Amino acid sequence: MVFYILEFMRKHNFNAGPAILPASALQAASNAVLELDGIGMSILEVSHRSKEFEAILDEAKKLLREILSIPNDYHILFLQGGASTQFAMVPYNLLEDDKKAAYLETGHWAKKANEEAMMFGNVEIVASSADKNFTYVPKNYTIPKDAVYFHITSNNTIYGTQMHNFPQSPVPLAADMSSDFLSRRIDVPKFSLIYAGAQKNFGPAGVTLVIIKDSMLGKVKRKIPTMLNYKTHTENNSMYNTPPCFAIFAALHTLKWIKSTGGVSVIEKSNDEKAKRLYDEIDRNPLFKGTCVKEDRSKMNVTFVMQKPELEPEFLKTSEKAGMVGLKGHRSVGGFRASIYNALPIESVDALVGLMREFAVKHA
Amino acid sequence: MVFYILEFMRKHNFNAGPAILPASALQAASNAVLELDGIGMSILEVSHRSKEFEAILDEAKKLLREILSIPNDYHILFLQGGASTQFAMVPYNLLEDDKKAAYLETGHWAKKANEEAMMFGNVEIVASSADKNFTYVPKNYTIPKDAVYFHITSNNTIYGTQMHNFPQSPVPLAADMSSDFLSRRIDVPKFSLIYAGAQKNFGPAGVTLVIIKDSMLGKVKRKIPTMLNYKTHTENNSMYNTPPCFAIFAALHTLKWIKSTGGVSVIEKSNDEKAKRLYDEIDRNPLFKGTCVKEDRSKMNVTFVMQKPELEPEFLKTSEKAGMVGLKGHRSVGGFRASIYNALPIESVDALVGLMREFAVKHA
Repeated sequence: MVFYILEFMRKHNFNAGPAILPASALQAASNAVLELDGIGMSILEVSHRSKEFEAILDEAKKLLREILSIPNDYHILFLQGGASTQFAMVPYNLLEDDKKAAYLETGHWAKKANEEAMMFGNVEIVASSADKNFTYVPKNYTIPKDAVYFHITSNNTIYGTQMHNFPQSPVPLAADMSSDFLSRRIDVPKFSLIYAGAQKNFGPAGVTLVIIKDSMLGKVKRKIPTMLNYKTHTENNSMYNTPPCFAIFAALHTLKWIKSTGGVSVIEKSNDEKAKRLYDEIDRNPLFKGTCVKEDRSKMNVTFVMQKPELEPEFLKTSEKAGMVGLKGHRSVGGFRASIYNALPIESVDALVGLMREFAVKHA
Repeated sequence: MVFYILEFMRKHNFNAGPAILPASALQAASNAVLELDGIGMSILEVSHRSKEFEAILDEAKKLLREILSIPNDYHILFLQGGASTQFAMVPYNLLEDDKKAAYLETGHWAKKANEEAMMFGNVEIVASSADKNFTYVPKNYTIPKDAVYFHITSNNTIYGTQMHNFPQSPVPLAADMSSDFLSRRIDVPKFSLIYAGAQKNFGPAGVTLVIIKDSMLGKVKRKIPTMLNYKTHTENNSMYNTPPCFAIFAALHTLKWIKSTGGVSVIEKSNDEKAKRLYDEIDRNPLFKGTCVKEDRSKMNVTFVMQKPELEPEFLKTSEKAGMVGLKGHRSVGGFRASIYNALPIESVDALVGLMREFAVKHA
């Protein structure tokens, strides 16, 4: 994997999102903000109806389709509003008032998604890990056959759990993949709908990706506000109104970087290795402990605490001095969270592991 | 007014939106995409919860409040989804099923706005200029006192008309100001709600500004999807979920440029002069004619056709050779449209006027 070196000292960026992006994408985006491909205009100034921008959008769709082997009966949409807007769009478009949707409750955002769905129809929570502060992913649940869809959250950014196997669902499967999209291979045909806010592995905040199977369109009788109707966007190639052009441009260059590394299978191996090195240290080091059940640990967001919580402020300060950012854990979990997304170099993980070891020696 | 010179030949950019932005904002945005203020991270990589980004958001709000003298009982929101999403949010939040909203129909987008409102309650179109292809702004209409709000479109991008005087409304006034926001002084207290897609005078596509009076919140009993509820955003300082950080950063630097020029009153004078030069030439030149009623002509989007339509392709080609982009008129009007937003230098207008004169000599 090639990492570009920008002409300044980059932080070890463990931010949960917005998060670290490939240097090559940053360089391309920075250049294009001044001038796009020698056309005398910035990427911020070109019309979304111009041939230049249409080429960008088309290439981004084509690359994504190639990288994830997305079949042709799936639409690829570049929308706005984040995954939070999808929490409403999914049931608005798929769940009739008198029908039922099934949800798996694996964390804060999963809960937000099912609560939003309750506005539109009936919701069955098939299983929840709220009983243990979302430190595991429920298994052995039954997906009701009369649900119009089953909604899962593939990775739980706050709690640091991840679904390593996706369920065999008797009904269409819808997944919020915001925080692990493009981090591993996925079998798209298993899903009927996938969505992801960009600001983890896909690009900057401001664009939301939706992959929706054609057969999922036109499922409800209710009127849907134009901008919340998937059909508006499938019928207008994500250009019903002005799309977030810059964010799409930066996403295109993130996709190009993924392709240049060898694709998601190579990225996945790299992510596996990064996660292994960090979890191995957490398990080995007497000062630290992981917060989640081992088999459900996330390879994107590594959550851990200290055996002696009183040492946490000092470790955090030490990490900041060593040029690391974003390690403070979410208030719902405490301790630390190292988000180790695609673009985070393994050297940053090694630096963190090194710091943990030094800290253990110091506090032995 | 100071115009920065970028190190390449910039086009005369007459795009209708996304449109030309101040060179100083482009330079600041380009730099920040590489690294924000020496912090070792890109503006695309910093957390929206970081002190760095919170300072950006706060400064943007403060500057906007200062530049437009926005009273303290108005919230300033940075949202996603464009004005098209506001077409739904306005009635979702303000119009009960059994109540009535009043709309002025002055163009394509005004029509979209009132059609969307019909999903939520009763709509009265108080006046429309559809009878003459939206070439004028209706006047002498009566705003019904039993409407919960009256909605106007301050500038009609496609047709090239603009409201030069705002009505005295007996009910709360809501305005889509997407295409002339920040181009002239406005008396904010006359309005209860103002919204604008950024991609004209305010910044790049991807952020939508909403200015809403506190008393307009909580107006309806219906449940509102979380992301479409204004209260979600007023109560969370536009950070309920990840905001479009980069677009907000670029908007901040566009606001800084406006302030550096002397503010909207100076910008307004410059816009008046640019519009005057162009309309004077349209009226003087025997080859061209304006498409709109003179008193309603837009100072942002100047629409005109040729007396001999068969000459239009040649003029368009000539303009492109002279480094001008975006002059082709919208298909609903034909001919030409020169969008002369804030950041377009008067030299670009003069270049266009010069070309029109040369063309008249050639075809005398």
